[in-house]
Amino acid sequence: MNVGLIGVGTVGGGTYKVLTENFQEIFHKTGIEIKVTLVADKNVALAKQLVGTSIPVVSDALELIDSKEVDIVVELIGGTGIAKDLVKQALLNGKHVVTANKALIALHGKELFAAAENNNVQLAYEAAVAGGIPIIKALREGLAANKIEWVAGIINGTTNYILTEMKENNLSFDVALKQAQELGFAEADPTFDIEGVDAAHKITIMASIAFGIPINFDGVFVEGISNLNQKDITYAEELGYRIKLLAIAKSEQDSVEIRVHPTLIPEKRLVANVSGPMNAVLVKGNMVGPTLYYGAGAGAEPTASAVVADIIDIARQSKISTKSLIPSLGFMPNQIKNKKLLAIEEVWSEFYLRLTMENKSGLLAKITNIFANHKISIDALVHKEVQEDNQDPDIFLVSSKVQEHQINKVIKEIEALPENKDKIIKLRIEELK
Amino acid sequence: MNVGLIGVGTVGGGTYKVLTENFQEIFHKTGIEIKVTLVADKNVALAKQLVGTSIPVVSDALELIDSKEVDIVVELIGGTGIAKDLVKQALLNGKHVVTANKALIALHGKELFAAAENNNVQLAYEAAVAGGIPIIKALREGLAANKIEWVAGIINGTTNYILTEMKENNLSFDVALKQAQELGFAEADPTFDIEGVDAAHKITIMASIAFGIPINFDGVFVEGISNLNQKDITYAEELGYRIKLLAIAKSEQDSVEIRVHPTLIPEKRLVANVSGPMNAVLVKGNMVGPTLYYGAGAGAEPTASAVVADIIDIARQSKISTKSLIPSLGFMPNQIKNKKLLAIEEVWSEFYLRLTMENKSGLLAKITNIFANHKISIDALVHKEVQEDNQDPDIFLVSSKVQEHQINKVIKEIEALPENKDKIIKLRIEELK
Repeated sequence: MNVGLIGVGTVGGGTYKVLTENFQEIFHKTGIEIKVTLVADKNVALAKQLVGTSIPVVSDALELIDSKEVDIVVELIGGTGIAKDLVKQALLNGKHVVTANKALIALHGKELFAAAENNNVQLAYEAAVAGGIPIIKALREGLAANKIEWVAGIINGTTNYILTEMKENNLSFDVALKQAQELGFAEADPTFDIEGVDAAHKITIMASIAFGIPINFDGVFVEGISNLNQKDITYAEELGYRIKLLAIAKSEQDSVEIRVHPTLIPEKRLVANVSGPMNAVLVKGNMVGPTLYYGAGAGAEPTASAVVADIIDIARQSKISTKSLIPSLGFMPNQIKNKKLLAIEEVWSEFYLRLTMENKSGLLAKITNIFANHKISIDALVHKEVQEDNQDPDIFLVSSKVQEHQINKVIKEIEALPENKDKIIKLRIEELK
Repeated sequence: MNVGLIGVGTVGGGTYKVLTENFQEIFHKTGIEIKVTLVADKNVALAKQLVGTSIPVVSDALELIDSKEVDIVVELIGGTGIAKDLVKQALLNGKHVVTANKALIALHGKELFAAAENNNVQLAYEAAVAGGIPIIKALREGLAANKIEWVAGIINGTTNYILTEMKENNLSFDVALKQAQELGFAEADPTFDIEGVDAAHKITIMASIAFGIPINFDGVFVEGISNLNQKDITYAEELGYRIKLLAIAKSEQDSVEIRVHPTLIPEKRLVANVSGPMNAVLVKGNMVGPTLYYGAGAGAEPTASAVVADIIDIARQSKISTKSLIPSLGFMPNQIKNKKLLAIEEVWSEFYLRLTMENKSGLLAKITNIFANHKISIDALVHKEVQEDNQDPDIFLVSSKVQEHQINKVIKEIEALPENKDKIIKLRIEELK
């Protein structure tokens, strides 16, 4: 089985390493010799430095996807421009494709899976979600007996590293981000990670597999962590919660909700204790209950572990068929059906609110009356004692479970009070039971 | 695809429920109608109560495995007597077999996998290890690109429930066991669980898949939790550890070690926080690093989730082949090779020791000298202040990493001291890094 590698950057280099160093191990598991036979990279010199003289390197990826020496094309250049054209053409050429490109699958999955199907080849993407964790396999196969109720994951290592540092070392967001960049856990332009876009790509893919719905990236609600205040991490802890950038997909009878935002999670949940750049995905099946999958969500070798797992799957299947036995998105293509996607205002949640108010007598009565008028309970409330004369007290509270448009009305009314001094901070809570 | 169920007890009933209630969901994922067409159970009346009148029930399982109405035989009666004969005969009859029977695979796997291979059918056993957690699939497929360095799991719910209660509610082993029995987390005869035999069956299977070695139950070192003292749970906590019944399989260059025993784990490890009857398996791959899989390790529906996942795998594959694409134990049968199995005395570990000694001056000097003479460091030591006059002080300590025969010599010398009042308690520590 001959592999053509497009792109030998971080993950491409890792994939080369796994296929080379574990060649014997993989042969013992498959009975098949899986070898890199061709490499395409813009930087031919650098690529040659990595793979030596035994494997030819070309600068034009089109040459690779046309080559008879290649059975499986591994696309690791990323993005949705050239990568898309190459993957599509490779499939049309009758090559299997393995990719780690989450944006590509989240934005063009439908078209590309159809191309794979029509050409009797496979488009595999385990590495696109949660790096080395075999979560796509768990969802499509391991938990296939279940109706999936929800999926909730810490699936962006950059933001989890930043949140961990903010909590454990009391850093501000800006300082934690800078530290993450220095240590290689965040990119020079970290926007996609910190604003939740990367996590949104991944949860879009998982939601489709979990619920049998078309991939629909546009429907995802996304809120990043760049506005998160260290104070709220501390207060959440006082209430028994940790704040994580959680990607959530839930299915009800006729509707689904897909969202990414900073979320308060009970600290005793295993997933609340996933720290640093690690990833974890919690899946609730109607029969198995909650299951959790944890591991490295990024990095050269962990991501390559998933890329090569896909290659092995294809190699093992190729003994009897080129076509995948498992539908690309877990459901038979003719059974993938749209469900109503809830707007964030319609979603039910408990809420954490932090208020900055002038300390006048009767203040708490005013606030609690507003909640009572809207028939929303307050499950916890802390009124911080003022330490210095010129300081306004912090009030933070946890609401009962309501739809977001309901809490928005409460917020509006409190912000209209004369005592109100600042915008109210609103964060969502997930019990994950 | 027609399923014949042998045994409709807890897991059998769960399997019937999953196949019935999730019939549509499974059809949407496979395009195949998977139905129970025949049931065999000694208690025909009770079985009929469960499955109603639409499905025939027979008392003789031989009738089921001979039936032309059955493509997949699901064996859920357990044990290694009749179950073995039935599974073997079903395979010889050209039926696929799905089982949750860990003892059967651990003791007779070799013979049964060969029978499956020779008859071009599959023998699937995901449910035999860690209930609903798809760990067999993760090891054989999801992590196939890796050389597995070690596997460490909490894979017995009964003992984890007991240890959780001992720790959190300060119960003795006997009280916690009784409570577990009352709540259905432990059987009337709990020996197999509390003495570690059940966990040993499961780690035997995982070790074989992880390292490509023959299944060899006899080589496993097993120590249960029935002699565990509540005191050691408390002291371990003071040192920053939790005590879990851990099943461990490690591979070195030319040797392997497989063992089950109460183990001190650093409390900050995710796996140390797996509580109650839940299971978790930590797997270290040479490329992916550590990954963890968590979920319900027992119970009707969770275990059935794994049974039905196997049925779905077989059904999906059956579109093109009856034979499994994945070797039964992950490695090609001709690549499964014996490795030297280390005796427990040869295994390297850090140790926790608890000493009961008469409090005389110079006592600590004597103890530490014995360690120094054997060139073993003490990484932590606590000498508890005596609270009452007639009490001897507790001393507990953590050794550096040594082979067990070395620490045994130290223990022998300390126990020979005139101050020694009781047998020294020895527990093993795993850092799981």
